[in-house]
Amino acid sequence: MNNSIRGTLYLIPIPIAEGQLNTIPESVRQLTVRLKYFFVENVRTARRYLKQLDKSIHIDSIQFSEINHRHPADLNLLQEWLEAGHEIGVMSEAGCPGIADPGSVLVAKAQDMGAPVAPQVGPSSVFLALMGSGFNGQNFRFGGYLPVKNPLRQKALRQMEDWSAQRDETQIFIETPYRNQQLIEDLIQYCKGTTRLCIAANMTAENQFIKTLTLTEWKKHYKLLDLQKTPCIFLVYAG
Amino acid sequence: MNNSIRGTLYLIPIPIAEGQLNTIPESVRQLTVRLKYFFVENVRTARRYLKQLDKSIHIDSIQFSEINHRHPADLNLLQEWLEAGHEIGVMSEAGCPGIADPGSVLVAKAQDMGAPVAPQVGPSSVFLALMGSGFNGQNFRFGGYLPVKNPLRQKALRQMEDWSAQRDETQIFIETPYRNQQLIEDLIQYCKGTTRLCIAANMTAENQFIKTLTLTEWKKHYKLLDLQKTPCIFLVYAG
Repeated sequence: MNNSIRGTLYLIPIPIAEGQLNTIPESVRQLTVRLKYFFVENVRTARRYLKQLDKSIHIDSIQFSEINHRHPADLNLLQEWLEAGHEIGVMSEAGCPGIADPGSVLVAKAQDMGAPVAPQVGPSSVFLALMGSGFNGQNFRFGGYLPVKNPLRQKALRQMEDWSAQRDETQIFIETPYRNQQLIEDLIQYCKGTTRLCIAANMTAENQFIKTLTLTEWKKHYKLLDLQKTPCIFLVYAG
Repeated sequence: MNNSIRGTLYLIPIPIAEGQLNTIPESVRQLTVRLKYFFVENVRTARRYLKQLDKSIHIDSIQFSEINHRHPADLNLLQEWLEAGHEIGVMSEAGCPGIADPGSVLVAKAQDMGAPVAPQVGPSSVFLALMGSGFNGQNFRFGGYLPVKNPLRQKALRQMEDWSAQRDETQIFIETPYRNQQLIEDLIQYCKGTTRLCIAANMTAENQFIKTLTLTEWKKHYKLLDLQKTPCIFLVYAG
């Protein structure tokens, strides 16, 4: 197995709620402020975050390469940095790089090169939601975003319910915040009243909300929620 | 929604590698040593861990209830503690309670009672492995343990490969350590040579190992590994 590459790719979680630096282990904070080479989703927010971690940090000595919808990952630059033996960080806008975000293409390239990859511990809204749901954590599936339009949307919701019942599998997914309320109404309309839905909103923030109810119960209560601008994880369980 | 319950159920991650306390955020350490009521997988190791976090801790003032193969969760005690307004911790032997371990039944009970549930940030070998694999983190599935015997085992391995290819979905699973080597041989025997396998061993430990190769490449190299007593996460991707 190729061990000639001296560089390392560190996967660096960052807080999922604004300013919640206390969700980052001290060892990860120290690593993050030490690195001079970064792939980040957004350079401006990455700079601001590094300043939060260490006011005395010399930002101009740090090289950033953006990876997002407008900028595909610069894999040649990654190879160059790894071959030069640099310690490189990957940071997304929130949470763990490579989970429900674009970072994994960089990791795949590093693995192809035989370069060491070092995932770090930190907050993941998907895992926090799964822990807090009370649903089956021995079998679970994360499916990302649902189709927006029917009949695909309805089919996807019913499929998740079927898979959960057949395999005793927790189904985890996300929605664009402005569609959260609509999603709950779709679940109530298309799925069984006995099926349980966990809504995990603003994880790790002061106003964190994580609640599991049957869809019949949610029907009575969901209008009390205002989730239109709230990052949420949804979990469905029909086991 | 019932908010009459004053107690809170905290889901407390602990290190997945012996002594790696630096993978625990300081805020979680402070919370953990403050709690006086715990559900734990093993009282002896839980006591030792609390002593590691705080040498001055008064262990005898802390109440423990075991939840493991021999002791089903005492849900009446949980209800009693929650109704008494206590702050209660759930800790498994390693990693995040409720993910690939028994804690979720306690969370489900707390959710049924309308009690606040507070998942905390910490290490999960499943998520660290997914981050480090370079595989698709937008669609993934954790299936726990594989069937031990054929034809079920062979069928399960091929099914994972098919699901991964059809849905561009990363397949994550675990094996009893003494069967790790056999599992790799089974994957090589039953799955396509182009299918990629990530082996994540001893996550967060000094000797952490996380490597992605095609099964054709693993065939050349796996005998160099000694994983027989090593906790591993396996990830398969045929996308």
